[in-house]
Amino acid sequence: MPTIYLITPTYYRHVQKAELTRLAHTFMLVPNLHWIVIEDSEVKTKLVFHFLHESGLNFTHLNVATPSHYKMDSTDPNWLKPRGVLQRNAGLQWIRDNFDPDHQQGVIYFADDDNTYDIRLFDEMRWTRKASVWPVGLVGYLRYESPVVKNSKVIGWFTYWEPNRPFAMDMAGFAINAELLFDFPDAKFKLQVRRGYQESEFLSQLVTIDQLEPKAEDCTKVLVWHTRTEKPQMKNEDKFKKKGLPGSDMNVEI
Amino acid sequence: MPTIYLITPTYYRHVQKAELTRLAHTFMLVPNLHWIVIEDSEVKTKLVFHFLHESGLNFTHLNVATPSHYKMDSTDPNWLKPRGVLQRNAGLQWIRDNFDPDHQQGVIYFADDDNTYDIRLFDEMRWTRKASVWPVGLVGYLRYESPVVKNSKVIGWFTYWEPNRPFAMDMAGFAINAELLFDFPDAKFKLQVRRGYQESEFLSQLVTIDQLEPKAEDCTKVLVWHTRTEKPQMKNEDKFKKKGLPGSDMNVEI
Ligand SMILES: O=c1ccn([C@@H]2O[C@H](COP(=O)(O)OP(=O)(O)O)[C@@H](O)[C@H]2O)c(=O)[nH]1
Ligand SMILES: O=c1ccn([C@@H]2O[C@H](COP(=O)(O)OP(=O)(O)O)[C@@H](O)[C@H]2O)c(=O)[nH]1
Ligand SMILES: [Mn+2]
Ligand SMILES: [Mn+2]
Repeated sequence: MPTIYLITPTYYRHVQKAELTRLAHTFMLVPNLHWIVIEDSEVKTKLVFHFLHESGLNFTHLNVATPSHYKMDSTDPNWLKPRGVLQRNAGLQWIRDNFDPDHQQGVIYFADDDNTYDIRLFDEMRWTRKASVWPVGLVGYLRYESPVVKNSKVIGWFTYWEPNRPFAMDMAGFAINAELLFDFPDAKFKLQVRRGYQESEFLSQLVTIDQLEPKAEDCTKVLVWHTRTEKPQMKNEDKFKKKGLPGSDMNVEI
Repeated sequence: MPTIYLITPTYYRHVQKAELTRLAHTFMLVPNLHWIVIEDSEVKTKLVFHFLHESGLNFTHLNVATPSHYKMDSTDPNWLKPRGVLQRNAGLQWIRDNFDPDHQQGVIYFADDDNTYDIRLFDEMRWTRKASVWPVGLVGYLRYESPVVKNSKVIGWFTYWEPNRPFAMDMAGFAINAELLFDFPDAKFKLQVRRGYQESEFLSQLVTIDQLEPKAEDCTKVLVWHTRTEKPQMKNEDKFKKKGLPGSDMNVEI
């Protein structure tokens, strides 16, 4: 059975451990996974290190920091500060360095840490030949975005925004065979890419539209949702401090 | 091994199925659970019905609608529109009707559909004698709220807001032995309760503070987080409609 390599960029914020916790639970239910977690950080944090070791999952822990000037708001609205770009590339590089395409079978999926994945999604992608595609829920200010399928072929894209992009898909909407990384050794994500074209530019390096394999019952089932978690306010920590009181114990990890 | 009865109120919104999906994944990893899901709805919806049947989990599916006048914003700021009150009571009633305290062992936990639960939390609560308590992350505008423990006894509450409430705890911070429902047959949640006193009023009917059993290493570990999910915008569905186009296919469930 091919191994599914999950590439997950992650960064520190208050909800990080909660997100990783429910994500790990999903992954615990799926056989033959290899979770590549790449922290957007100068160093590997204790939180993620211990979390991964305690999880019992098959994982690789990497880190690479997004350069701070890329994190600033760009003046050109066509370039957005990149999220997870260098981290996903680090994951791809790890696979190029550690996977043997002549003796192993593998599929690669970019699993952001805040999305929601139905475990049946992994059955759908497991036997990807080149690139599999499916709908993504709660994205693009729509109930879902999806490839448009006719006679089991992708013929276009159901999105409101720029459906004429070559691959008008969210990161959560496709998986690729690991072999492609060796057929196209330079393929990667770019720090500077036209806004909304990251996925499209990446896939253009690897496949053509006629090679796409529609999954999830010809793209009629939603098995992944682009959920986002509210940023919790900490205003009572500040109020404690203003009163000269310590607030929560920083030794208690959240 | 005592059965853990999870009481989960839930209501329709775009993220509902995603929330239930990741929640179910967590529960699939825990032995001897019984999931009581109560829809805040006049009828049982197809979405929840099919979801539960496909989950493979041991469940009971109930419904009771919150009366609409309780859902309106109250003019008195001390009374907040109740969330999940009648639903949790329906769950308690089901246990009173179906559980045999003379021949079964059970623990009850109120598991809201949007929180994040570490599976180790269920080990902590499994052997609750009266009521177990532990910290809850990301609640009360703090990193966490927690019982204050001294010599393995609860002596107070770490919260910013009204730490002098009898039980200054979030719904996610305690579990009770099912026997208590039979010792105190009238104990329940109230539709009208002083804002922020729902949990405290409920527990006051069942236990005294000296009976509380602190868990999670004397309340130093956070194993549950009061996460909240962003409400996704659907503005491009509206734009499709304004252009006279159909938008997403309503037969595709999200
Ligand atoms: O500064 C950042 C912001 C985000 N991410 C990660 O990149 C992915 C996509 O980010 P996010 O979910 O915030 O993007 P969106 O939900 O807006 O698509 C997630 O796995 C994040 O944890 C990151 O590594 N560094
Ligand atoms: O109208 C409502 C609002 C909420 N809930 C449920 O009640 C619980 C608590 O609601 P919520 O998570 O919105 O509350 P908060 O996060 O503000 O504590 C959750 O399981 C919800 O699904 C409900 O049944 N009906
Ligand atoms: Mn995201
Ligand atoms: Mn909630």
